[in-house]
Amino acid sequence: MNNGWLDEIRWTEDGLIPVIAQQENSGRVIMFAWMNKESLQLTAKQGYAVYWSRSRQRLWHKGEESGHRQKVIDIQLDCDEDVILLKVEQEGGIACHTGRESCFYRSLVDGQWQTKDPVLKDPKTIYK
Amino acid sequence: MNNGWLDEIRWTEDGLIPVIAQQENSGRVIMFAWMNKESLQLTAKQGYAVYWSRSRQRLWHKGEESGHRQKVIDIQLDCDEDVILLKVEQEGGIACHTGRESCFYRSLVDGQWQTKDPVLKDPKTIYK
Repeated sequence: MNNGWLDEIRWTEDGLIPVIAQQENSGRVIMFAWMNKESLQLTAKQGYAVYWSRSRQRLWHKGEESGHRQKVIDIQLDCDEDVILLKVEQEGGIACHTGRESCFYRSLVDGQWQTKDPVLKDPKTIYK
Repeated sequence: MNNGWLDEIRWTEDGLIPVIAQQENSGRVIMFAWMNKESLQLTAKQGYAVYWSRSRQRLWHKGEESGHRQKVIDIQLDCDEDVILLKVEQEGGIACHTGRESCFYRSLVDGQWQTKDPVLKDPKTIYK
């Protein structure tokens, strides 16, 4: 595959792009992470999400430990060529390291962050 | 309203937080932008999205020129307290400065960014 599409992206100074992961079937936004050029290329090639872990400074094949991989349905780019929207099928139905469906499980209610979503699986049993 | 909820957020070194705007009714992700503390506080208080424009280095009351304001339905926080998901009603049905419903109007197809969404309104008639 021609890689010109990667050069159209306006990477940050650190060579990254923010990525929003959205569940294709439910439309739920489940995660936010970053990719570098290599991880986005791998994501497109392999059909499963590969992020760049800023804390660990290495490629992060989503689900490498948990098994909760994200199958890529669509890769979308915004008007400024500096944000990716990734439509995915979330394997296992759990995207968050807390064992929840989505990382966005809290809402602002009366000036407080209120947890609305249950933990579907104990993280201790997800990560060995 | 108590402002402790603002102190729970882990702001970037620049005092910002990335914000994903999602249309409440359709579930479509329509925009990605940034907020600082003041803009997030105003967003919660006024019930309409106020961003921080990094290019113009000032508060950006979404819709101030276009009239395409975003009514806030829900403010959600992620597991790491460093990303906001904003559920909104997009007035005018146009979030993008190109006159489209969403800023994410291109998909990667056969190694090329392919535009899928029509321009609903000529930007020249949106911005005076």
